[in-house]
Parts: sequence; C-alpha cells; structure tokens
Amino acid sequence: MRQFVFASHGFFAEGIRHALELIIGKRTNISTICAYVEQGVELKSQIQEVLERTVPHELIVITDLFGGSVNNEFMNLVAENPRIHLIAGLNLPLLIDLVTMSDTQENTEALIEDALKNAKASMQYCNLTMQKTKAEDEDF
Amino acid sequence: MRQFVFASHGFFAEGIRHALELIIGKRTNISTICAYVEQGVELKSQIQEVLERTVPHELIVITDLFGGSVNNEFMNLVAENPRIHLIAGLNLPLLIDLVTMSDTQENTEALIEDALKNAKASMQYCNLTMQKTKAEDEDF
Repeated sequence: MRQFVFASHGFFAEGIRHALELIIGKRTNISTICAYVEQGVELKSQIQEVLERTVPHELIVITDLFGGSVNNEFMNLVAENPRIHLIAGLNLPLLIDLVTMSDTQENTEALIEDALKNAKASMQYCNLTMQKTKAEDEDF
Repeated sequence: MRQFVFASHGFFAEGIRHALELIIGKRTNISTICAYVEQGVELKSQIQEVLERTVPHELIVITDLFGGSVNNEFMNLVAENPRIHLIAGLNLPLLIDLVTMSDTQENTEALIEDALKNAKASMQYCNLTMQKTKAEDEDF
C-alpha cells in the first residue's frame, strides 16, 4: 500500500492532515513531519525515521514549499531512492485526490499528474468565478 | 491596512499560519477560522466575529477547498460585502506572496491574480522537474 508523507515548516502538516481526515475519514497510511517545532529535533532525523518505518512501500511525499528547506531536504533523497515521489505545494484538493484516488490508480505518475492538474484548477479567485457565472447566466 | 483571514476545516488554518510566520515573521493583520474543532461553536458565528472585528478594512479570505462548506459559507457573503475578496485553495506559496506583496501592491485584484499564478507554477512534481533539469543540462 502506498504511504503518504505530509512535510512542512511548523504545524502546517499536522493541521492539513486534521482537515483531510475530517473530510475523508481517518487513514493509517499517512505520516506527518512538522519541522522546527521542537528544539533539538533535527529535520534530517525526522525524515530518516519515516523512511525506515515505511520500507519497502512507495512513498508520496508532499511538502509545503518548492525551494523551501523541507522540500530541499527531500530533493537530495529523490535520486538515490526511486520509491520516493516528491510533490511541492501542500493543499487540500491535492491531498483529497491523491489519497482517495490512490486506491484505484496503479500508475503513480498518472495519479500525481492528475491530482496536481485538478488541484490547480480548483484554486481560484471566487469573486471572479461568481462574476463569470453571472455573466454566462445573463447570456441565456 | 488589508486584513487576511485563513479559514479551514479543522486546524489546517492555524497550522499554515504557523508555517507562514516561521518563514516571514509574525503579522498582526491575520485571523484564522478553524471550523468544527469545538462543539457548540458555529461556523457562521466564527465568521461574524471576524467580519465585525475587521470593519472597515478590505478582507482577503483564503479558504481550504472550493466547494467545501467553509468556502460555501463565504460565497454567500461576497455579493453583499464588496470588501470581501474570496480565494479557495489555501497553500503556502500563495500566502507568502499575498501577505508580503500586499504592502506594495495597491490593486487587490492584481495582487490576487499574480499570487495565484505564482502559486500554481510553484506546485510541482519534483521528480519530473529534476528529470527536465537534468535533460536540459545534458543538452549543453
């Protein structure tokens, strides 16, 4: 079974997991990494613990920010760990799609690309969406 | 000064604020709404409290999920409250851009559209990004 890791600066990863599980229910194949929340706990060792615990499963890691320190730490691991799939840009529509579609989609690349496409389409400036809907309604 | 509201199912809104402020520092113009975390606390009254407290400032509200109950609740308010700008799809690159560029960008529509565009570009499947970068490097 694929394993998911949500990783972020601060408590973001734990918070978005809470929102996700309120919507789709509890899942046992999710781990979270909250970096920089506890003095003396190194990000590298948090990552190592998750990697060891999830062997030999495929890992889909979603981090908070491309170019951020948490994502960079995982970038260093992708080349030598072909079981790691790394996505930057934690958000809720992405997680809902990834986790729920994971049960039926066998191709991990296709799963990720579809979920990213849907998530980007779902992010929107709603005032503009409402104006467009209203204008279309008036055309009829 | 523009006010920001992060609103979500569960503790996601509070968690992403924590990540944001670890990166850009504490801000006084951010409120969070965490729905369904306390029994007997209605989402409608959480929203009302924020609306009253932030009069007469312009409000940029970012919710967790287009089509979700938190976003729907705000959709009902946009038409009658021209000071509300509603965005669906909380994520960290979006918030960093919105909050930091808000100090210099006077046009709210332009601020939101630029931040959304940048955030979508920043969300990516990093394995693919690395493959492309490697292929480009090999072309030289």
